[in-house]
Amino acid sequence: MPGEDMPRGRRSLSTTRMEAFSDGVFSIAATLLVLDIAIHPPGTALEQVLHAWPFYLAYVVSFLTIGAAWLGHSQLTEGLTRTDPLLLRINLLVLLVVAFLPFPTKLVANALHSDSSERVFVTMYGLTLLAIRVLGFALDAYARRKHLSSPPEASAEQQDEPLELLPVLGGYLVAILIGLVAPRVAVAVYFAVALYMILFKALPRHRSRAHRPRP
Amino acid sequence: MPGEDMPRGRRSLSTTRMEAFSDGVFSIAATLLVLDIAIHPPGTALEQVLHAWPFYLAYVVSFLTIGAAWLGHSQLTEGLTRTDPLLLRINLLVLLVVAFLPFPTKLVANALHSDSSERVFVTMYGLTLLAIRVLGFALDAYARRKHLSSPPEASAEQQDEPLELLPVLGGYLVAILIGLVAPRVAVAVYFAVALYMILFKALPRHRSRAHRPRP
Amino acid sequence: MPGEDMPRGRRSLSTTRMEAFSDGVFSIAATLLVLDIAIHPPGTALEQVLHAWPFYLAYVVSFLTIGAAWLGHSQLTEGLTRTDPLLLRINLLVLLVVAFLPFPTKLVANALHSDSSERVFVTMYGLTLLAIRVLGFALDAYARRKHLSSPPEASAEQQDEPLELLPVLGGYLVAILIGLVAPRVAVAVYFAVALYMILFKALPRHRSRAHRPRP
Amino acid sequence: MPGEDMPRGRRSLSTTRMEAFSDGVFSIAATLLVLDIAIHPPGTALEQVLHAWPFYLAYVVSFLTIGAAWLGHSQLTEGLTRTDPLLLRINLLVLLVVAFLPFPTKLVANALHSDSSERVFVTMYGLTLLAIRVLGFALDAYARRKHLSSPPEASAEQQDEPLELLPVLGGYLVAILIGLVAPRVAVAVYFAVALYMILFKALPRHRSRAHRPRP
Repeated sequence: MPGEDMPRGRRSLSTTRMEAFSDGVFSIAATLLVLDIAIHPPGTALEQVLHAWPFYLAYVVSFLTIGAAWLGHSQLTEGLTRTDPLLLRINLLVLLVVAFLPFPTKLVANALHSDSSERVFVTMYGLTLLAIRVLGFALDAYARRKHLSSPPEASAEQQDEPLELLPVLGGYLVAILIGLVAPRVAVAVYFAVALYMILFKALPRHRSRAHRPRP
Repeated sequence: MPGEDMPRGRRSLSTTRMEAFSDGVFSIAATLLVLDIAIHPPGTALEQVLHAWPFYLAYVVSFLTIGAAWLGHSQLTEGLTRTDPLLLRINLLVLLVVAFLPFPTKLVANALHSDSSERVFVTMYGLTLLAIRVLGFALDAYARRKHLSSPPEASAEQQDEPLELLPVLGGYLVAILIGLVAPRVAVAVYFAVALYMILFKALPRHRSRAHRPRP
Repeated sequence: MPGEDMPRGRRSLSTTRMEAFSDGVFSIAATLLVLDIAIHPPGTALEQVLHAWPFYLAYVVSFLTIGAAWLGHSQLTEGLTRTDPLLLRINLLVLLVVAFLPFPTKLVANALHSDSSERVFVTMYGLTLLAIRVLGFALDAYARRKHLSSPPEASAEQQDEPLELLPVLGGYLVAILIGLVAPRVAVAVYFAVALYMILFKALPRHRSRAHRPRP
Repeated sequence: MPGEDMPRGRRSLSTTRMEAFSDGVFSIAATLLVLDIAIHPPGTALEQVLHAWPFYLAYVVSFLTIGAAWLGHSQLTEGLTRTDPLLLRINLLVLLVVAFLPFPTKLVANALHSDSSERVFVTMYGLTLLAIRVLGFALDAYARRKHLSSPPEASAEQQDEPLELLPVLGGYLVAILIGLVAPRVAVAVYFAVALYMILFKALPRHRSRAHRPRP
């Protein structure tokens, strides 16, 4: 039976450390994104600021994607009563890809003005976003399968996860294909998926505890 | 009644994670500001160091603004007994703008010597500062409206917040208008607002607990 | 007798601070690695992205090495009931070298294409990896010798550490020698050692608590 | 009487947040130092690596100074039972200067090869180190004066602080004066002071709890 070797409510220290290291990587990756925003000389100051829209767009999409990944991660660890060696390693893989995201973000932002290289960079960006979501799902699935999360808190809220995964994965796969033809449209789809994850994905989970928020 | 589903004093884990992620973004954004400080060749070493005053000024104004936002944020979460999905999302928006601040800070610092581009960059800077304050206020207002903070600790200290908001918002709006004519004066006003927030805004809140500090 | 001046299970605050500061440095060093990934002009966008393989390789090796060092560190601190002044100082030395790793990582990534400078940079990289492991071992050995970790939790799991250390140290020393002749092969060995540490090193320790995971 | 409004051992949440934000800034500032280490073209790879010694020296001195400041800070907060508004603000000032340190560190590292600009940059570096120490002392003195730290844990360990301060302040003032004539000697003194702080300053404080470590 899961969690039988540990009184309910007490959490192991390794869970705390996993959260601290993960929160560190999530927040640093999100904050480093700003370092790649830049304006470039041709035009007046106002034109330069407006012309830099791909940097703002890429910043917002990547920040919201990391934010959504963090929301999912914190929902997962909220129910965790202990870790196991494989969970810590899958978690490191998630973080490795999250920490990598600023690089394709920079490529996409720089490429949105030069038509020739857009396609490659946008595809690379999409694959990174897809990897973050797939690895996040693997982390979640492993934790549930190994009964690492405490059942009373987690059961009702977590079982709809596989269903929720489909629109996000579908959106990413469609966007990656679109990106081969129309890279800018693909970036718009990545934005839409990030908004979808932020706005809808995590909402149902908390409903039971939050007395069904009145709109 | 607020907090009735959770024994007083016990805080949900999501509150802890929200704090950890937020502390990460606040401290990283504040510390990344230093990366944009630079000196430039013409003149002796001493002249270069002194000539870089706009970088020091922009560093201090942005650091103190992030510090004030963090003070307000930590006062808010101190009273929080639980989060809800919308609170976490408003919080992500706050962090998205806080993490963006190093970019307009860099623009302002670089522009204070070249008269032509000052106006645009200083306006952009002011709008970012304004957005941090407005979103911080929205976070606070939402938490109080949804009774997410525990009343005994929070009541007496938090109800004067709307009043305190006015001078800061007023200062920002006036400074943004001034900036269209005299950008350097606007930066001085942003400095004054940051000092005001640091020195006065948060002081009344703690008075009841700190035995009224004798000056 | 170790820990006799503190009720078992209660941990001193300095332990918490040591963890927080260490988690900060580990996660920042790991996340800063991405800043050095870059693509360079000759060729099409796809060729540029593929041609940047040394950056991806160096990123993954350094990230996994920091990840393995963090795993070892969190296993150590999990058993700690108190710190002492020397432990905090050895820990600062570990962090000083971990925080230094992004620099040789950048050198190696940049050098893997230019044959002349590879040897020096790869040796420097190997010495840094070796220093992280040796200092990590010193931290562990000191904590056990001074009985700073609580025995019931730590005993069965930690006594095989010296044995585990040998293959890693051996791998590093062999790779440093190989690197003097064939730098790229050495980088492959560093990758293998990082994978070995991630996959095997920490696994035995948790076995007793995790009911021996069925493969 | 200090701490009378709060049961001993229970710490206020604001103390935890102050620690989290401070640990963030300390660890990020320490880890950002690596970004400024660089090698420059003239000479073979080995010559370039060896020629970069000022960068390694500046990295180590600044890292150890931040480490010593963090040690002092964590000793202070260990005894804290509550914060007050002014303490949080003095703390923000400490962090503002700590986060600034990477900038003069970069200047000093770049200047140690060019004789003309050394003097100014080394003086600026020394003033920043001095400011960190003086503000850290102010934080400590304020916390003790306002009885914010719990007396049973703190008394015996903290009262020798003013005495300890003198050699460090003296060392800095002497080094700043020396730096006007012989900048490189001053950097060596800063190194010595950092080592002194790491090795001796904090040791006496823990003695009572750590059963007087046998050398």
